[in-house]
Amino acid sequence: MQVCENVGRSVMRRTGYDRLEKREDRRHPGVRRSNEEPSDMCAAKAGSYDPRNFRALTFFDAAARFRDGGDSPRAYLERCLEAVAAREPVVRAFANRNDAAAREAADTSTARWKAGRPLSPIDGMPIGIKDLLETKDMPTEMGCEAYRGNFPKRDNAAVWALRQAGAVIFGKTTTAELGGTHPPATTNPFDPARTAGGSSSGSAAAVAARMMPAAIGTQVGGSIIRPAAFCGNYALKPTQGAINRGERQATSMSTHGVHAGSLEDMWQVAIEIARRVGGDRGDQPLSGPSALPAAVAPGRLIVVETEGWKRTDAVTQAAFGEFLEKLKSAGVTLLDRRSHPAVETFEQAIARGETIAGNITAWENRWGTRNLVDQFPDAVSERAKRGLAKAEAMTVDDYRALLLEREVAQATHRSTRALADGIVTLSCPGPAPLWSGDTPGEPLAARPTGDAIFNYPSSMLFAPVVTVPKLAVGGLPVGVQLMGLPHEDARMAALARWIDGAIAPVVAG
Amino acid sequence: MQVCENVGRSVMRRTGYDRLEKREDRRHPGVRRSNEEPSDMCAAKAGSYDPRNFRALTFFDAAARFRDGGDSPRAYLERCLEAVAAREPVVRAFANRNDAAAREAADTSTARWKAGRPLSPIDGMPIGIKDLLETKDMPTEMGCEAYRGNFPKRDNAAVWALRQAGAVIFGKTTTAELGGTHPPATTNPFDPARTAGGSSSGSAAAVAARMMPAAIGTQVGGSIIRPAAFCGNYALKPTQGAINRGERQATSMSTHGVHAGSLEDMWQVAIEIARRVGGDRGDQPLSGPSALPAAVAPGRLIVVETEGWKRTDAVTQAAFGEFLEKLKSAGVTLLDRRSHPAVETFEQAIARGETIAGNITAWENRWGTRNLVDQFPDAVSERAKRGLAKAEAMTVDDYRALLLEREVAQATHRSTRALADGIVTLSCPGPAPLWSGDTPGEPLAARPTGDAIFNYPSSMLFAPVVTVPKLAVGGLPVGVQLMGLPHEDARMAALARWIDGAIAPVVAG
Repeated sequence: MQVCENVGRSVMRRTGYDRLEKREDRRHPGVRRSNEEPSDMCAAKAGSYDPRNFRALTFFDAAARFRDGGDSPRAYLERCLEAVAAREPVVRAFANRNDAAAREAADTSTARWKAGRPLSPIDGMPIGIKDLLETKDMPTEMGCEAYRGNFPKRDNAAVWALRQAGAVIFGKTTTAELGGTHPPATTNPFDPARTAGGSSSGSAAAVAARMMPAAIGTQVGGSIIRPAAFCGNYALKPTQGAINRGERQATSMSTHGVHAGSLEDMWQVAIEIARRVGGDRGDQPLSGPSALPAAVAPGRLIVVETEGWKRTDAVTQAAFGEFLEKLKSAGVTLLDRRSHPAVETFEQAIARGETIAGNITAWENRWGTRNLVDQFPDAVSERAKRGLAKAEAMTVDDYRALLLEREVAQATHRSTRALADGIVTLSCPGPAPLWSGDTPGEPLAARPTGDAIFNYPSSMLFAPVVTVPKLAVGGLPVGVQLMGLPHEDARMAALARWIDGAIAPVVAG
Repeated sequence: MQVCENVGRSVMRRTGYDRLEKREDRRHPGVRRSNEEPSDMCAAKAGSYDPRNFRALTFFDAAARFRDGGDSPRAYLERCLEAVAAREPVVRAFANRNDAAAREAADTSTARWKAGRPLSPIDGMPIGIKDLLETKDMPTEMGCEAYRGNFPKRDNAAVWALRQAGAVIFGKTTTAELGGTHPPATTNPFDPARTAGGSSSGSAAAVAARMMPAAIGTQVGGSIIRPAAFCGNYALKPTQGAINRGERQATSMSTHGVHAGSLEDMWQVAIEIARRVGGDRGDQPLSGPSALPAAVAPGRLIVVETEGWKRTDAVTQAAFGEFLEKLKSAGVTLLDRRSHPAVETFEQAIARGETIAGNITAWENRWGTRNLVDQFPDAVSERAKRGLAKAEAMTVDDYRALLLEREVAQATHRSTRALADGIVTLSCPGPAPLWSGDTPGEPLAARPTGDAIFNYPSSMLFAPVVTVPKLAVGGLPVGVQLMGLPHEDARMAALARWIDGAIAPVVAG
């Protein structure tokens, strides 16, 4: 085991994966969630992630002690602030905080628990809000110079709902510029030389660094699931439209979702929002039980490669293969493109996901970005301007054709309903890549927050996804995801719960 | 015929309709559109509307003279400004104007026409923009005190498209507060004691008063079609999502549409926008020919009463009956709830339109309005606050149930596809009502901008509608509308064109 001094040094290189030994996990899974203090403050060292002993921060199991006075939301918040003090200088997960407001909210929550009248199971939960969503007590700067100091003094619908449920709005978490690809300064909590992923960089990193038990992210391409997978979080990217985006009606594939240290907190946050503010305008809101659904063992799962498989390194491919073997050993029948022609048809329908999702989003962001660049030409990144140029080369008929292609993919997805209980695939094509900033004079790095190649399918299919931190590759997290048909969010959470409890993590390297 | 001195006096009362004589129109229809100057500046007198001699302002027929130098966009604009000078003191259709910017745009358009290189058929068209849409050169105040002075200095996607097509952004037209029911000061151009309708009050009135050939409106319940019908305009409320709302992703039933003095200009404006910026994010954009489709005679039409029929006065009912007789005489087979059981089923499916559309919209506006009231408690109308209270009494499950009811209505609508070429009904339950403001100390008037009861069906069905000014009741306009299935916008325009040319207007009173 490495020592704390290794902080800041990357011990893993992409080219080094295949020399890593595979270690079998023999510990019983399902014990990694706990509300204990971090046992090992060396968690920040490079490549230090081991799912067998990593303890994520949880909230759902704290309530009993809030009731008997052994703990309180205020004390919980103070522990989070201690983690912030210890980790934030390197992790840089926050865009803004308002500690006074958070402490005040935690105190009123403490009083409610003491009186036996919490507003919800997440009353007192410190929760981070991705800095694309408006908050009445903190600026909303969207990772973009043009929005520096922007302070609309109102709450996004989801933030409003969280406050109604008693949650403590703990801070604004960093985002890639405007939810795009230009990265914030945030680093990966398991290796500061690597990206935390994006665009929900801060939400993913803050949860992984035990600064908070849950945080709100948003996704258009891969902005919830990719960073969650790189940071070892659980996360829900819900059915398109199932959680109210409020003023953030950005694009046809944008969603609000939840990063958390546990499936319990992930589900609870999502359902508490949906119960209060529903889904997007005209969309059926997230449905499901008032707490995490019971575990459901899948009988059959479809395994898809997606476009991402050929971009996946050999160690991660092998680790995922081992994970699939564990599923089979646990009695799950797996279907893939080789064993079932309908899966092959589906693979083909999603094979252009990157192009379809990328170009649809580029077109949809076109006027907003054009307005911003016209108003603030020097306060928008070169990356965003390049996306704009791509969008401005498109015609409405290009867009029309992409929508048709997306609809065909969605219809093909629906046709898989009878085959299996869900779809399983990697959440990312390997661990978070190294990232230390663009080099002046060099071309811009293509994917500074990592590759979202495994995330375009669920985005373009409007499909719910739950990612579970089941793999470690070279001491860094890699997620696997369960994808359902639209509005099967609760069913995916139930399958994820079963996998989380029944399948031991795979540690490669 | 009355004299100009009658301006300002209402000569029609709702209770007086049934004593009005019915006059048969013997003039050939289809000659009312013209680019001539108004022949009768008495058009402002009370109850002065006669579709047989009213000349709406048109643009589509001006191009030939732009080319040969006999006219120019700048000269056209100056004529509009003269109409503004004559009519605006009473009509009050504008929230803001920027005449200098409009003149500059008209001059550059004039140069393009002179060079034989217009950007589109609407190059040089002066067009009003409902003051809910952002414009980079004028404030966007939304008819709401809380937005007084709001000036985001950017263009809504539709406004951006209009500028790309060379249109002259002529001014911001008044809106009921936030697109709701609290009315602006705008009066009906045919009787200043009456409302112009709402919420697109200024767009409807400015077109009817010949201040401009077309204007952009928006509709959630009845905010395009109702004021158009009250003001004798043609208007398109497109398929839900078919015209890009830009930043105005207000609610699941909100749309951008077009008011115009002619079907030609109405269609041209809509298709020029859609060609450049498409539809809403994820929705198929408006489709159709690059100019108004050729007239198509319907073989069969479904006539629906909707909830509105029982709120319609006897004179308007009789006038609509006469209109239907003319359709039959012209060879159109009509189906209604008495002659076809499927029409009865459809009538029942839309019989709760007011409740369904009203409550869905109330819920969807809830967080935006709550934020506004919290920030600016004294700068939001009592009407808006009452709507908020209604919304805040709803639960997410109430909303869920309303969405289901809406989906059933939409499915029932689709099932009418095989029966007929389209659906015809009144656009409003009679002429524009009298309105002179709330009386202090009295309860707030329920519908100061008139009753949208005939408009909820198309809103909740996401259906395209074209309204045509085919009736006059007591010297005031009343529209009839053609409704199609989603994405049948062009087909409805073709049917409307046939009706406009083949069916003489009905003048009652």
